[in-house]
Amino acid sequence: MVRVVILGQGYVASIFASGLEKIKAGKMEPYGVPLADELPIKIKDIEIVGSYDVDSNKVGKDLYEVVKSYDPDAPESLRGITIRKGVHLGSLRNLPLTPTGLDDEMTLKEAVDHLVNEWKELKPDVFVNVCTTEAFVPFESREELEKAIEENNKERLTATQFYVYAAAKYAKEVGGAAFVNAIPTLIANDPVFVELAKESNLVIFGDDGATGATPLTADILSHLAQRNRYVLDIAQFNIGGNQDFLALTDEERNRSKEFTKSSVVEDLLGYNAPHYIKPTGFLEPLGDKKFIAMHIEYVSFNGAHDELVITGRINDSPALAGLLVDLVRLGKIAIEKKEFGTVYEVNAFYMKNPGPKEARNIPRIIAHEKMRMWAGLKPRWL
Amino acid sequence: MVRVVILGQGYVASIFASGLEKIKAGKMEPYGVPLADELPIKIKDIEIVGSYDVDSNKVGKDLYEVVKSYDPDAPESLRGITIRKGVHLGSLRNLPLTPTGLDDEMTLKEAVDHLVNEWKELKPDVFVNVCTTEAFVPFESREELEKAIEENNKERLTATQFYVYAAAKYAKEVGGAAFVNAIPTLIANDPVFVELAKESNLVIFGDDGATGATPLTADILSHLAQRNRYVLDIAQFNIGGNQDFLALTDEERNRSKEFTKSSVVEDLLGYNAPHYIKPTGFLEPLGDKKFIAMHIEYVSFNGAHDELVITGRINDSPALAGLLVDLVRLGKIAIEKKEFGTVYEVNAFYMKNPGPKEARNIPRIIAHEKMRMWAGLKPRWL
Amino acid sequence: MVRVVILGQGYVASIFASGLEKIKAGKMEPYGVPLADELPIKIKDIEIVGSYDVDSNKVGKDLYEVVKSYDPDAPESLRGITIRKGVHLGSLRNLPLTPTGLDDEMTLKEAVDHLVNEWKELKPDVFVNVCTTEAFVPFESREELEKAIEENNKERLTATQFYVYAAAKYAKEVGGAAFVNAIPTLIANDPVFVELAKESNLVIFGDDGATGATPLTADILSHLAQRNRYVLDIAQFNIGGNQDFLALTDEERNRSKEFTKSSVVEDLLGYNAPHYIKPTGFLEPLGDKKFIAMHIEYVSFNGAHDELVITGRINDSPALAGLLVDLVRLGKIAIEKKEFGTVYEVNAFYMKNPGPKEARNIPRIIAHEKMRMWAGLKPRWL
Amino acid sequence: MVRVVILGQGYVASIFASGLEKIKAGKMEPYGVPLADELPIKIKDIEIVGSYDVDSNKVGKDLYEVVKSYDPDAPESLRGITIRKGVHLGSLRNLPLTPTGLDDEMTLKEAVDHLVNEWKELKPDVFVNVCTTEAFVPFESREELEKAIEENNKERLTATQFYVYAAAKYAKEVGGAAFVNAIPTLIANDPVFVELAKESNLVIFGDDGATGATPLTADILSHLAQRNRYVLDIAQFNIGGNQDFLALTDEERNRSKEFTKSSVVEDLLGYNAPHYIKPTGFLEPLGDKKFIAMHIEYVSFNGAHDELVITGRINDSPALAGLLVDLVRLGKIAIEKKEFGTVYEVNAFYMKNPGPKEARNIPRIIAHEKMRMWAGLKPRWL
Repeated sequence: MVRVVILGQGYVASIFASGLEKIKAGKMEPYGVPLADELPIKIKDIEIVGSYDVDSNKVGKDLYEVVKSYDPDAPESLRGITIRKGVHLGSLRNLPLTPTGLDDEMTLKEAVDHLVNEWKELKPDVFVNVCTTEAFVPFESREELEKAIEENNKERLTATQFYVYAAAKYAKEVGGAAFVNAIPTLIANDPVFVELAKESNLVIFGDDGATGATPLTADILSHLAQRNRYVLDIAQFNIGGNQDFLALTDEERNRSKEFTKSSVVEDLLGYNAPHYIKPTGFLEPLGDKKFIAMHIEYVSFNGAHDELVITGRINDSPALAGLLVDLVRLGKIAIEKKEFGTVYEVNAFYMKNPGPKEARNIPRIIAHEKMRMWAGLKPRWL
Repeated sequence: MVRVVILGQGYVASIFASGLEKIKAGKMEPYGVPLADELPIKIKDIEIVGSYDVDSNKVGKDLYEVVKSYDPDAPESLRGITIRKGVHLGSLRNLPLTPTGLDDEMTLKEAVDHLVNEWKELKPDVFVNVCTTEAFVPFESREELEKAIEENNKERLTATQFYVYAAAKYAKEVGGAAFVNAIPTLIANDPVFVELAKESNLVIFGDDGATGATPLTADILSHLAQRNRYVLDIAQFNIGGNQDFLALTDEERNRSKEFTKSSVVEDLLGYNAPHYIKPTGFLEPLGDKKFIAMHIEYVSFNGAHDELVITGRINDSPALAGLLVDLVRLGKIAIEKKEFGTVYEVNAFYMKNPGPKEARNIPRIIAHEKMRMWAGLKPRWL
Repeated sequence: MVRVVILGQGYVASIFASGLEKIKAGKMEPYGVPLADELPIKIKDIEIVGSYDVDSNKVGKDLYEVVKSYDPDAPESLRGITIRKGVHLGSLRNLPLTPTGLDDEMTLKEAVDHLVNEWKELKPDVFVNVCTTEAFVPFESREELEKAIEENNKERLTATQFYVYAAAKYAKEVGGAAFVNAIPTLIANDPVFVELAKESNLVIFGDDGATGATPLTADILSHLAQRNRYVLDIAQFNIGGNQDFLALTDEERNRSKEFTKSSVVEDLLGYNAPHYIKPTGFLEPLGDKKFIAMHIEYVSFNGAHDELVITGRINDSPALAGLLVDLVRLGKIAIEKKEFGTVYEVNAFYMKNPGPKEARNIPRIIAHEKMRMWAGLKPRWL
Repeated sequence: MVRVVILGQGYVASIFASGLEKIKAGKMEPYGVPLADELPIKIKDIEIVGSYDVDSNKVGKDLYEVVKSYDPDAPESLRGITIRKGVHLGSLRNLPLTPTGLDDEMTLKEAVDHLVNEWKELKPDVFVNVCTTEAFVPFESREELEKAIEENNKERLTATQFYVYAAAKYAKEVGGAAFVNAIPTLIANDPVFVELAKESNLVIFGDDGATGATPLTADILSHLAQRNRYVLDIAQFNIGGNQDFLALTDEERNRSKEFTKSSVVEDLLGYNAPHYIKPTGFLEPLGDKKFIAMHIEYVSFNGAHDELVITGRINDSPALAGLLVDLVRLGKIAIEKKEFGTVYEVNAFYMKNPGPKEARNIPRIIAHEKMRMWAGLKPRWL
């Protein structure tokens, strides 16, 4: 059994909840779940025990009602969980929502205690953080983090940073928990949080779930690197219509993507080929199914110039939701293995920006095999 | 030093010769050569010592003149080798060329002896077979092969099959040689030839150099498989204007592509997703730079349908020519290691249809690492 | 009121029937119908009064049941019409269907009389021919046509050719009718049939409904021609999973596409740029939504080389079905105007191979304006 | 004879000069010149008589030297013209160039007189404005314009606005001239300048030469509109590596593109389909050959959803340079016809943002025919 608490009941969390229940009910194949039912912990062992949000239209509603607004085929088995109030800390700024949070009612210190108490009742093993992309500043020292909480400095912390802090406190009290950070805020890449996690029996997976065009780009660049083709330039566009793309039209939030290791290109090719890789725009009718376009130009043997163009329509939220079905189970396994702090073998396959800070990107196809071995499974092709 | 004899001085062999000389002269980077100068045998150690063809416009000409017709920047250092007469055995049927071959002047048995004698003078380590794609029938038994030579049955054998037979005889006499089969004719996948090679101190690499869209498709399918995305269908087109595409407009020859393991899809996905993958057409102005287009549709988590489209302009001949720069050196290494017969570790990365017959496809990104280890190099990411 | 008889109740005819009823019921916008409700004859004035097929699984069934197998949302208002038996004349050869036709039971002459009698009861204004693509031979003379009917030569005629003959007889008797030939069989381009139509008060529109990539290619080529860009080559692929693509895997049928004016390229560019334009393959899971890919390379000012690549997913049957909603009304208008024979102004916009035989292709954007003027509408932009 | 003065000797002007000379010398076909040699004024009648720039690396150099830096095959016949000093008025802000201008040495009023005097010697018929894209503010009244010149307000005017003012003064004095504004600054769309032109015997063509993806998008949207397909959304990206793309990374300049009629979509479709159309990024190795990507989604008959994706590599400068070869001749024709002010028939085909202000976009294929008729040529297909 893996008990899961969701932080941010938006598109991804709702597809996660909906798909999970359908698979558990035998009504859907576990497509998009990399390890399907190969792990000792089965998909049917996953149970969502709580969910937090800060949209005043969601807080207090039944999980089923919220999920249904994203997936009309949401199963009724989702009924019975009420969305609880989390913290927003300004993370919904400029979005067409009315936020409501614990931080509107109490100090940060009080909010930590409030949440830890709730969690001791809910008894989650794993927290899944799928808040809206935030404008954040990494922490430079443990002191700075503690001070921000202590002094109730709501400008300094984002919701994600706050939740990790609270989760660490909870983990320390109950002996172990895991925190899956699926958004760009640096957590597994922030040594302050990794250190805190190690001391507190917390496992952190992160940062930024590896969905969309980036992991595919990574494997294509590896493909070119292995043939010693010299990449001249890489352009990658993507445009979508879900709230995450809307949030990224906010300059400050978009900058949070810049903390993502721009070293994917350099890590895989061995040199920093000129590239333009960033979320490009918001176009509402595209909905959750984004349009991606990528152009790669390279030199082959005898000076020949080749070009590849990749375009696609990719459902954004299901891609991440499917990974979460693995990550919550791997989180539980990491707790059992007592691998507190962060786990590179898991991050390298599942995360765009795999922590810890000093870790490098490797081809996802190889990362997958290493991750399997970490999880006690046989590699597929090695 | 690796001494190389070319069989079929067409586009690929000419780009190979031209690029090789430019790299040796320090005038060009070894882009498109997967192992560049990592191997103990360096690129400058490769020497072309002979070249065979059956186009009456090429036989008797200087190598430089022939190469220049494909690459205007051909270096003068190619001068000094005269194109010798090989065998055609009907392999130029329906192409706009006038063939001339040893088989027009003598029996097959005599032609074998003629070639083996020439080779004993030229002393090649490695034969590179880049004949035009042939319409062929695999051999079922050693007896059938021997009988076809013995009875001078020119209908039964293709040029490639004949060359392997002659190369085996040569290898046996001189103690070791390698034959790189870069075209679709089944050699490394024909147990009759692999058995003959083992007995004759011959190394065979094959079949069908892994260039173009297929290896990329393989890595993209692996990428999807590792995320457990369910592939609904795969369409892959390619159209080009070089002689190889012209040859494939011949129905019989195109059928030779069908012997290629259609199991790429099944090997990598674990099920046989419906697919349409074949050379599509000839369009002269495209020249050697083919146009490829690929469409893949798959199911992601919660039943979401995604689509990828890949298009590209790819220089056909340089892609293969760059691989040959590795293969001739790996051939020499295999001779030194006395790994006669065929070498799966090499074939799995470099060949579309990796021999031996019973071998399966694996993701190229992983095959690359295994090949490095076979060659005594450190893996790059494992 | 326009009374319509359908010949060939397959995918296109079923989407036509289903969409038409939905628009008439105010449940759907007339998207994909070029003239929407601009014509004096409104969409709600169209009535399907009869339908013919030769699939033994369809003949005798209610139209609603057949349509529902193609469109699960078929409206109940389609009930009440029973699919009648037509002629097949070998046109279903090699398809996974059991054909049943009047031609199995009687002579061609008898079948003509049988149909004309039925039609005199059904009183259609317009026949819509959407049979499966046929392998056909155009007629060279009226005598040859009459003789084939007279001598019951079932090998000489296709279903379409037969239906036109019968429709002409019917039109002559009742004073006027129209025949919309939406498939590649040459009718509006066969002077024998156009002559017959003129004498018989029959309007013919044809041939081969202009859907899919070809009209788009035409407008893109016009775009390039108007800028005097010199087109080097054009490659166009398409692959689909409906019965029409399956039928085209039959070599003989595919050849019927070759009668299509290959002069599109020459008509629009003014020279015959090398091109490869043909249906490419069948891939069942694509269903009715085909995948198209097109590559165009051209020379711009100062010798610069540019490239365009167009890919798409296009629903095949709705594209044609939407045109039919106009064509049946324009057929009725042509009858009223007594423009018997064929009407270039209509064909030039709606047909891939616009008749009469000697007619040329023009940019569709301009053809559209001319067609509007023919129909008594104001041009949109002229 | 058409005497041409170039304003801004950058990439476009250099390709224009180079290609023009090659065509005049019979060494190159006039590809990319829409009207080729159909006009009574022939290409060989065009003569460049002067050129202005403000890059200190160009001013004072021979035209041949400057052109050669953009086109290594520049013909020697370009020798003999010295690049003169123009005005910059801050238009090179943030670009890696050292500007030098008349405005650094004298008042605006003095600079007008200086230029008019030079021009009275050079005797140009047509000015071609191909300055770098500027951050500008349109003029609201003639007074504001006159005052800015009078008061030497260098912050208020851009180089283009200044040049038009000077050209009007020159035209008035000599009895007629034409000004081709190929950049986005509103001139033909600014009633103040059109009024000034009318009074001063000046012809203005503008604004923003219709190259790249936009005119193609226009024709594709027209194609969809004519079939009554309902466009759901349009995304269009483009990325390039020339100075124009670099300039557009400057937020202020990029905004100048926003003055472009965003009504292309609405004008052609009849409704304002959601769209994202803007220059996307700068990627240096792409050079002058930009990468474009476009995605269009629409509803066809019976509610079917179709998708088109267009990608391409397009040489940016030659596309515009080819149009200029027509525009300078059409400018001369307009002078002869005394059509002072601006000419919609010319702008509608050649300009992205066709003036005058209130003019609407029409399909380019139709605009082309209207333009031909204006120029006294027979339409091609009407």
